[in-house]
Amino acid sequence: MNPLSASSPNFSPLNPEPTGNNFSIADQAATQQARDQNVGQRPGTLNIRPGALKPRLFMLSYHDDFIEEKEYTDHYPEMIRHLREHPELKHWIDVRGYGDLPTIEHLMRDFGIHPLQMEDVLNDYQRAKVDTFDDNRLFLVSRMIDFLPSTLEVDDDQLSLFTGPNYVLSFQDDYDDCLEVLRQRLRTNFSQLRRKPSLYLAYALTDVVLDHYFPTMAAIGDYIEWLEERIVAPRRDPRLLNRILRLKKDMVRFRRLVYPERDKIAELLRLPEDIISPDMKLFLNDGYDHAVQALDLAEGYRESISSLTELYYAEQSNRMNEVMKVLTIISSIFIPLSFVVGLYGMNFQREAPDGSINPANMPELYSPYGYQGVLLFLALVVGGQVYYFWRKGWLGNG
Amino acid sequence: MNPLSASSPNFSPLNPEPTGNNFSIADQAATQQARDQNVGQRPGTLNIRPGALKPRLFMLSYHDDFIEEKEYTDHYPEMIRHLREHPELKHWIDVRGYGDLPTIEHLMRDFGIHPLQMEDVLNDYQRAKVDTFDDNRLFLVSRMIDFLPSTLEVDDDQLSLFTGPNYVLSFQDDYDDCLEVLRQRLRTNFSQLRRKPSLYLAYALTDVVLDHYFPTMAAIGDYIEWLEERIVAPRRDPRLLNRILRLKKDMVRFRRLVYPERDKIAELLRLPEDIISPDMKLFLNDGYDHAVQALDLAEGYRESISSLTELYYAEQSNRMNEVMKVLTIISSIFIPLSFVVGLYGMNFQREAPDGSINPANMPELYSPYGYQGVLLFLALVVGGQVYYFWRKGWLGNG
Amino acid sequence: MNPLSASSPNFSPLNPEPTGNNFSIADQAATQQARDQNVGQRPGTLNIRPGALKPRLFMLSYHDDFIEEKEYTDHYPEMIRHLREHPELKHWIDVRGYGDLPTIEHLMRDFGIHPLQMEDVLNDYQRAKVDTFDDNRLFLVSRMIDFLPSTLEVDDDQLSLFTGPNYVLSFQDDYDDCLEVLRQRLRTNFSQLRRKPSLYLAYALTDVVLDHYFPTMAAIGDYIEWLEERIVAPRRDPRLLNRILRLKKDMVRFRRLVYPERDKIAELLRLPEDIISPDMKLFLNDGYDHAVQALDLAEGYRESISSLTELYYAEQSNRMNEVMKVLTIISSIFIPLSFVVGLYGMNFQREAPDGSINPANMPELYSPYGYQGVLLFLALVVGGQVYYFWRKGWLGNG
Amino acid sequence: MNPLSASSPNFSPLNPEPTGNNFSIADQAATQQARDQNVGQRPGTLNIRPGALKPRLFMLSYHDDFIEEKEYTDHYPEMIRHLREHPELKHWIDVRGYGDLPTIEHLMRDFGIHPLQMEDVLNDYQRAKVDTFDDNRLFLVSRMIDFLPSTLEVDDDQLSLFTGPNYVLSFQDDYDDCLEVLRQRLRTNFSQLRRKPSLYLAYALTDVVLDHYFPTMAAIGDYIEWLEERIVAPRRDPRLLNRILRLKKDMVRFRRLVYPERDKIAELLRLPEDIISPDMKLFLNDGYDHAVQALDLAEGYRESISSLTELYYAEQSNRMNEVMKVLTIISSIFIPLSFVVGLYGMNFQREAPDGSINPANMPELYSPYGYQGVLLFLALVVGGQVYYFWRKGWLGNG
Amino acid sequence: MNPLSASSPNFSPLNPEPTGNNFSIADQAATQQARDQNVGQRPGTLNIRPGALKPRLFMLSYHDDFIEEKEYTDHYPEMIRHLREHPELKHWIDVRGYGDLPTIEHLMRDFGIHPLQMEDVLNDYQRAKVDTFDDNRLFLVSRMIDFLPSTLEVDDDQLSLFTGPNYVLSFQDDYDDCLEVLRQRLRTNFSQLRRKPSLYLAYALTDVVLDHYFPTMAAIGDYIEWLEERIVAPRRDPRLLNRILRLKKDMVRFRRLVYPERDKIAELLRLPEDIISPDMKLFLNDGYDHAVQALDLAEGYRESISSLTELYYAEQSNRMNEVMKVLTIISSIFIPLSFVVGLYGMNFQREAPDGSINPANMPELYSPYGYQGVLLFLALVVGGQVYYFWRKGWLGNG
Repeated sequence: MNPLSASSPNFSPLNPEPTGNNFSIADQAATQQARDQNVGQRPGTLNIRPGALKPRLFMLSYHDDFIEEKEYTDHYPEMIRHLREHPELKHWIDVRGYGDLPTIEHLMRDFGIHPLQMEDVLNDYQRAKVDTFDDNRLFLVSRMIDFLPSTLEVDDDQLSLFTGPNYVLSFQDDYDDCLEVLRQRLRTNFSQLRRKPSLYLAYALTDVVLDHYFPTMAAIGDYIEWLEERIVAPRRDPRLLNRILRLKKDMVRFRRLVYPERDKIAELLRLPEDIISPDMKLFLNDGYDHAVQALDLAEGYRESISSLTELYYAEQSNRMNEVMKVLTIISSIFIPLSFVVGLYGMNFQREAPDGSINPANMPELYSPYGYQGVLLFLALVVGGQVYYFWRKGWLGNG
Repeated sequence: MNPLSASSPNFSPLNPEPTGNNFSIADQAATQQARDQNVGQRPGTLNIRPGALKPRLFMLSYHDDFIEEKEYTDHYPEMIRHLREHPELKHWIDVRGYGDLPTIEHLMRDFGIHPLQMEDVLNDYQRAKVDTFDDNRLFLVSRMIDFLPSTLEVDDDQLSLFTGPNYVLSFQDDYDDCLEVLRQRLRTNFSQLRRKPSLYLAYALTDVVLDHYFPTMAAIGDYIEWLEERIVAPRRDPRLLNRILRLKKDMVRFRRLVYPERDKIAELLRLPEDIISPDMKLFLNDGYDHAVQALDLAEGYRESISSLTELYYAEQSNRMNEVMKVLTIISSIFIPLSFVVGLYGMNFQREAPDGSINPANMPELYSPYGYQGVLLFLALVVGGQVYYFWRKGWLGNG
Repeated sequence: MNPLSASSPNFSPLNPEPTGNNFSIADQAATQQARDQNVGQRPGTLNIRPGALKPRLFMLSYHDDFIEEKEYTDHYPEMIRHLREHPELKHWIDVRGYGDLPTIEHLMRDFGIHPLQMEDVLNDYQRAKVDTFDDNRLFLVSRMIDFLPSTLEVDDDQLSLFTGPNYVLSFQDDYDDCLEVLRQRLRTNFSQLRRKPSLYLAYALTDVVLDHYFPTMAAIGDYIEWLEERIVAPRRDPRLLNRILRLKKDMVRFRRLVYPERDKIAELLRLPEDIISPDMKLFLNDGYDHAVQALDLAEGYRESISSLTELYYAEQSNRMNEVMKVLTIISSIFIPLSFVVGLYGMNFQREAPDGSINPANMPELYSPYGYQGVLLFLALVVGGQVYYFWRKGWLGNG
Repeated sequence: MNPLSASSPNFSPLNPEPTGNNFSIADQAATQQARDQNVGQRPGTLNIRPGALKPRLFMLSYHDDFIEEKEYTDHYPEMIRHLREHPELKHWIDVRGYGDLPTIEHLMRDFGIHPLQMEDVLNDYQRAKVDTFDDNRLFLVSRMIDFLPSTLEVDDDQLSLFTGPNYVLSFQDDYDDCLEVLRQRLRTNFSQLRRKPSLYLAYALTDVVLDHYFPTMAAIGDYIEWLEERIVAPRRDPRLLNRILRLKKDMVRFRRLVYPERDKIAELLRLPEDIISPDMKLFLNDGYDHAVQALDLAEGYRESISSLTELYYAEQSNRMNEVMKVLTIISSIFIPLSFVVGLYGMNFQREAPDGSINPANMPELYSPYGYQGVLLFLALVVGGQVYYFWRKGWLGNG
Repeated sequence: MNPLSASSPNFSPLNPEPTGNNFSIADQAATQQARDQNVGQRPGTLNIRPGALKPRLFMLSYHDDFIEEKEYTDHYPEMIRHLREHPELKHWIDVRGYGDLPTIEHLMRDFGIHPLQMEDVLNDYQRAKVDTFDDNRLFLVSRMIDFLPSTLEVDDDQLSLFTGPNYVLSFQDDYDDCLEVLRQRLRTNFSQLRRKPSLYLAYALTDVVLDHYFPTMAAIGDYIEWLEERIVAPRRDPRLLNRILRLKKDMVRFRRLVYPERDKIAELLRLPEDIISPDMKLFLNDGYDHAVQALDLAEGYRESISSLTELYYAEQSNRMNEVMKVLTIISSIFIPLSFVVGLYGMNFQREAPDGSINPANMPELYSPYGYQGVLLFLALVVGGQVYYFWRKGWLGNG
């Protein structure tokens, strides 16, 4: 029962009805709603987010020339037993979905996880980080970033890893992930990965997440090019600027997610040698370079998106210019013509009421070929104006 | 008597009449007015802000399995007696409102508060900070931030805490606060909080303030979405840009308020172990992460609000474009038509004054179906133009 | 004789005639002109700025229960004698105006001031700073900042302080200052200030300058609000944008002046304890917080002024929009009407020259109620258009 | 077999068809595509980029007064043999093109290159860096930057260097390079370079790359000037803004490429003296200054390109202004004229149907010289307006 | 023979013809062209820039009460002899112009200058810096900055100083300089400068360069004010924005040149006491303050120039607004009038062809005073509109 839940604004005098599908604020807000319910609770209290998936448990046990994969979703005790009975194997326990508090609590008890750390796992908005324990165990948080083709938005999920003497325990809130490539590598008979200690697996998982940033960014790059084409397309999508601004924000968010990833690796590199071997340091150095390159690319993309905005406004201004040119050309040509024909529509009378003749009053009207003369004059005016506009470059495109 | 009070400008040659309810400068200025009266005074002189509420005194005394709440508003000596008589209990003395100098001075004397610190308490614009005393006591300032649905503005209040061996003394300038959730937690029989030393209560109060930032930001997020909808609504609120710019400033202010909060926790973390126990450090680390996340979110919101401004201008430009298109289409169609009908309104005479016939003068006027011919021609012109504008994408939306 | 004085540009091909009262560059340039004459001179050469006021000398001598104020403007030797004869008193020698080189040189000699430091005093553009001497004396420069209601500009003056064993020597270039409040405090019988060593007076002077920033900023805040109202006022001041941009620059300047003030206090705090006592450190800490708050407020104001610029442009665009709407509405209504009436102004003849009747030629003209029919049609067209524009929200405000 | 290759978005609902030749995203994306195929692979796995050139092997062996150049493209073993048989010579092994895995693997084995480093060589997007080995060998990556006149884009290639006791092994992915000048220097009989140890050659190669930045930037400078002229040219290239924005991005990229180059040299300078001799340090200091100057120039160019954008928009706005002026002048002159001639086209009858005379009805029509009077009046109106517009400065240019 | 000289782009498909006198890129590019020819050369190879002036040699020898000035342009050996024969004097050898390689090489040999340092002297784009030698000699580079009234551009020249036991050797590439003031000071009989060691002269030269920044900035300040007036002038210079943007770039360049100057002094201040005496440190501190003030002023000017750009655009928008208002007022007044007069130009016939009378057809035409009535109505319409526009504030200025 949280008395603060009433503090969400409803803008009653203004009728808000937030739609929530713009600017991708919605999912962040959802996370916050979940957090709302935590205000004032003891830090470390576990809250399962409403709508969280039922946890599925997978275990992948391997040794130099042995590998076994099994799902233990409803057989938790069996999994723990298997883990205890085979200390000679290395295990990857893969938990997907958080939607069951008892399972989470069993895992906390059996793997010695601190409530604050489990809160970080369940909380869906946690920056990448590394925590070290007294007994040389590590708690690693990575952010898996995807560009979803369906919503054309950047989506990120959390991968939380706990390392142990001969296991890695991973948490994700989704059933699908980008780690399948690593499973394939483990399944390969001669994989080096199988021969290394289990801590190496934790690093390999982090590295896969990092490498996945590059196809994500390639997708964003394609999307930027597609947007650029749309800007100059004759029929413009009215939501185009929205798309561009949303992508801009996504890019800012991408960088905000990747920066801690880089810092996490830098922190891993500073760990003492009894945790991180020199051999692993070499590979971490490589991972650090990749993170820096991802940030470099992201910086370049941010510039590209700024250019998109500038192009958008320039194009909008171009179109206004074109509208004005059409108006100006048509008006400039026909308004003078209308004056001339109006002139000869005047009713000045050659013959005054007293019968006298005023030959000065519009003699053109009575001259033969007066009409043709006027038509010729009008044609000359039109021709002159068309020439003037053509010379100014107003006719034709651009 | 402050001779500087005359230094407030009155723009007499310009007739200012500042309204003071825009851009939320007003309340900051009010603080400054209060400060005006301090110029030249001895630092540490206490000034009760005019309009400050009469102080209400609450005391919440608790032990592992005991809790007692009482209001001592007009019974200050009784409260002090109770505090002295029960050194075995932990006490939370909660002072709400500063509007009575004698009460404030009694508190200063009885709890050994330095005048400069009390000045910080009474002064309503103080950044979050932590001060340590020689005797391991702490002085903590937090800023409670709310998004008021009534004014659609960010509002912040100060929570000042003094810790003692078995008490926490808190000051707020308002009767309402966001700390009720913590009181509920204390009232719970098995609350861990009751068993910990009173210093832990001070940290829990700080943490509640920190956690409250998230529902505040969720409210701002909803407001941003509502604003975004208003931008593209057909009838635009003329004060819309004002609202956006005000929110932008509020967001800047939010960050300026939260940054010192983060730094305060960082400073607490650097305190020696005899003040902050390792156990508490773990929780403070968690609080630090929360502050960083709040800043991250605020950064994202700032980007969203920038996008709002861009959308606003783009929409304004779109509307201008639409106005121009209507003008251009109507003018381009009818101005040439007017020319044609004007042409046949000319008074060229078939019959010259001398009776001779000038058959070249406007023979169309005399041809049967001349009128119909002209109407047909006009229809063709209109059709051609409509086709041209349709092909250019000027007809229809966007 | 300075050969460089000819280096001031005269833009002869362009006829500059700089007016010098815009953007407050003028007074900075004046300072530079003065500096021009220094180029190549030995550093530390004293130059009295042309137009500097004749120095007035005031001395305020005090002790725990004694105070004496006297002007020694034309009695310099008497002042020095009084100073030497009363080592038991604390003295504040207040020099206002620099316009007399011999007086300045006497002061330098009698108070042991280095030429470079006196150059800093006379030079009107010196950032706030603190210099320490070997013998624990301090040289403090503060900037007094005011918002002048007459010119609506930020004005700053320099307050230079030299501390000595039992005196403070202050320099200002103006007769008026913001220090009167401190004099009042000294005149009060039970002032703590009188009992403290004279160094404390130097700090109190610095603090008064610092506190004066807040009423200055309150005045700027009022001015910002007044400007905001002017932006949406129906008749716009053509110099409005100038005012806003000038204020923006003033705000940038304000921050540039206050930052060194903050750094100066930070430097004072780092001084060894034999110069700054722990007691004074507490108060300096308070002053540091005030400087940070002033910078915080200035940052907020800068944001407000940016918003003013945005509002200005949005309002300008709004007005353009309104102009265009009036044009579009009037043109769109009347241009088609003109076409219709032009149509019936055509001279197609029912009767051909050969006497035959062409009943197809404009039969409307001959029908009874044809005129009324056309008028009705025109009214319908107008009604339709008005409805269309009303539905688009173009009629009415905004 | 990479299951992620399907993750590249295809925007199916939107029909993207990315063209890929804008904003130079294409080549970066190509690199990423290559990297896509690496996701999940063991770090250090070598991937030859599709389309990489077949490696050509050159060796340049030299001594104080001896030089020999030979291509060993299809004679790899012979090259190694020559290298081993002549330890008294210094060798520069120059590998151009990466398109043959066996060759690469032979080089790795024979020169003791770590797979991760070879991955850096083959990966085409690697920031400039320096790695040191335990045995004082260096791995240097430089970026050769060119401004291609054909595409008017900045192009960069990687130069990777491995130093050994008496050789330098360089890798490039292209057959052409900017190192020919250095070869010329080596061929000169009295070249100092020949007498220095081979490590000096590695530095000289780095320096040539650095020096090549300056002609690249001179080319960009010329291009900026050419763009500036195009902005004000009467017929504007519709892709002009695109070009400017692309160049802006190229400039940002240039800086992002040169910054690590500068940092690399700074890192070389920090190497211990047994690797970098004091003599070489002097030259590296010089190289550091050059890198800083290149960055300074790039900063200036960035400002120039920003100015281009501003000029572009101002010019666009100017043109709009001109269009509007033409419309306004023509309309303002002829619309009133049309009114006047329309006035005298009214059919008010002097003679009422009942035969009575209404002399008040348009007597002008019957006055002699009425027509001339009207023409004169119209001429005066036109003259007055032309004078008004001329005084306003609307006639003529600008 | 430099094969890279062909790498300058010629944009052949686009016909560039760079003019080179915009944005002051030209002279920087010239420097780069010179550098182009260095690519691949041994670092430290001397290249005389084509067009460099023939060196003129001046020597100013002085002692406490002695001074001698002489030009040794074609008598180099004599100068060296004089230098060697008078170790008791202090000498300032002033080399102006670099256009003769043998002279340069003689100087290098006789004064022990390293080729890399001489390269820095001859290279015209070198940031201010200080290098120390093993034997306590200094190499100082300063940048002399001028605002040229002829081109209205910032121009900078390099002053390179080598200090020796009893001499200062200075290099400039121009015959004119801003050092004459210092020569005057030396010529004064009682100059302190004469009595100090020659190192002091080097500092004094640096200080003169620094002091010269202030008149340069005063000139820029005047130019800014002149530009501001031009913005609101009725006839606007079409190159005005170009000028503003060029000045903005010059200001950026100014800061980029002065920052290293400040850092150079800071570095001098960090030199050990056996090079820089405490006495000189005091003066260097003063110089440091001056450099900081120059940067402060430059920052303020940058803000002023930004304001200029904003004013420019606002003014451009104002003018557009005015154009639109004229169009709108004229059109709105006359288009309805034209409709009314067109109305009465319709040819509806009172008398039908069958002779019947249709009294409903335009009876106004036959009423007496119908014409006057219409004229009155038109006058009322005009009056109403003028009143409407006047109330809207569209008539009159602003």
